[in-house]
Amino acid sequence: MADADPIAELIRLFSRLPGIGERSAGRLVFHLLAGDPGYTEALGGALAALHRRVRRCVECGNFGASERCAICEDPRRDDGVLCVVARVPDLHAIERSGSFRGRYHVLHRLLAPLDGVGPADLPLDALVERVRRHGTREVIVATPLNVEGEATALFVAQVLAAEGVAVSRIASGMPHGSELEFTDQVTLGRALSGRRTLG
Amino acid sequence: MADADPIAELIRLFSRLPGIGERSAGRLVFHLLAGDPGYTEALGGALAALHRRVRRCVECGNFGASERCAICEDPRRDDGVLCVVARVPDLHAIERSGSFRGRYHVLHRLLAPLDGVGPADLPLDALVERVRRHGTREVIVATPLNVEGEATALFVAQVLAAEGVAVSRIASGMPHGSELEFTDQVTLGRALSGRRTLG
Repeated sequence: MADADPIAELIRLFSRLPGIGERSAGRLVFHLLAGDPGYTEALGGALAALHRRVRRCVECGNFGASERCAICEDPRRDDGVLCVVARVPDLHAIERSGSFRGRYHVLHRLLAPLDGVGPADLPLDALVERVRRHGTREVIVATPLNVEGEATALFVAQVLAAEGVAVSRIASGMPHGSELEFTDQVTLGRALSGRRTLG
Repeated sequence: MADADPIAELIRLFSRLPGIGERSAGRLVFHLLAGDPGYTEALGGALAALHRRVRRCVECGNFGASERCAICEDPRRDDGVLCVVARVPDLHAIERSGSFRGRYHVLHRLLAPLDGVGPADLPLDALVERVRRHGTREVIVATPLNVEGEATALFVAQVLAAEGVAVSRIASGMPHGSELEFTDQVTLGRALSGRRTLG
């Protein structure tokens, strides 16, 4: 099938999505062809307009439909606490937990020297500026618990060291409902060293 | 998040695709937002145009970019043999096997009384008309080896009974490379009853 073929072209484009190989891409396209044209057009239109319609909040980097996101516009949030996250889905995960009422700062990337992401690529000038402007009491660094997330957390702490703001890191330990027997060594080590006094 | 939110809207549309739940839909959308806008627009454009650009061949029902598909236009194919398939992906599977050089007839559906698909919904008038016009020698029914595919195959044979054309069904038996020990009873029964003389 030549690539001018609309089916082959869509299969090729679909299979560039993560987790979608050429076979599943083919299945999707033939599923769409057998279904409602209106739905396929709506999906196509929403995709084509995505980057145009979604903006990064000028304040915190969260996605939204206008200049400032819904969280930055919410007057009930605590300006004194800033939570630094790597990606917008991480922000949503924290929102779902219902455990945080402060503001966010989305980095959109983590330090990754091998991929060419260095300190200057992180929006930390903006973070420092926000901390000064709002007199922030505490910055919670909620980057992921992997090598890049930990390196980025340490770097954020360094950058904020001179600002007189408390910098904390989310706890590392055993997930809720987990069994000691099946917990990996690193996690168990962290759960032990991070133990808290009871009562 | 309100549904006027472009992210929520795209997640909702994506999660209507088979095999894509709300979680994976979310991952896809944030993956796209972190990536090349040009790619997302190309994917959206290809989707929006899909039903407009893809046509059903007036002769056989295969998908293509013009009135008649590439297979019907190919003068080297054997007009004497017609292979009836349920769906276009089945046609592609047979083409990949390299074992067939005749023409196709795509039904686009199978008999399914419970889903309201009856005999009149199958394009069998067109099949009979093609058989008469080309003086077809043989019709191979390659519908799937499940209940609906078998019922449809029997019905196709009935419809063609008066046409003086040989009607055959693809063989049912053990797949290439399979072990007897792990083969289901029905398949093994069919493999035995469909046995062929050696030498």
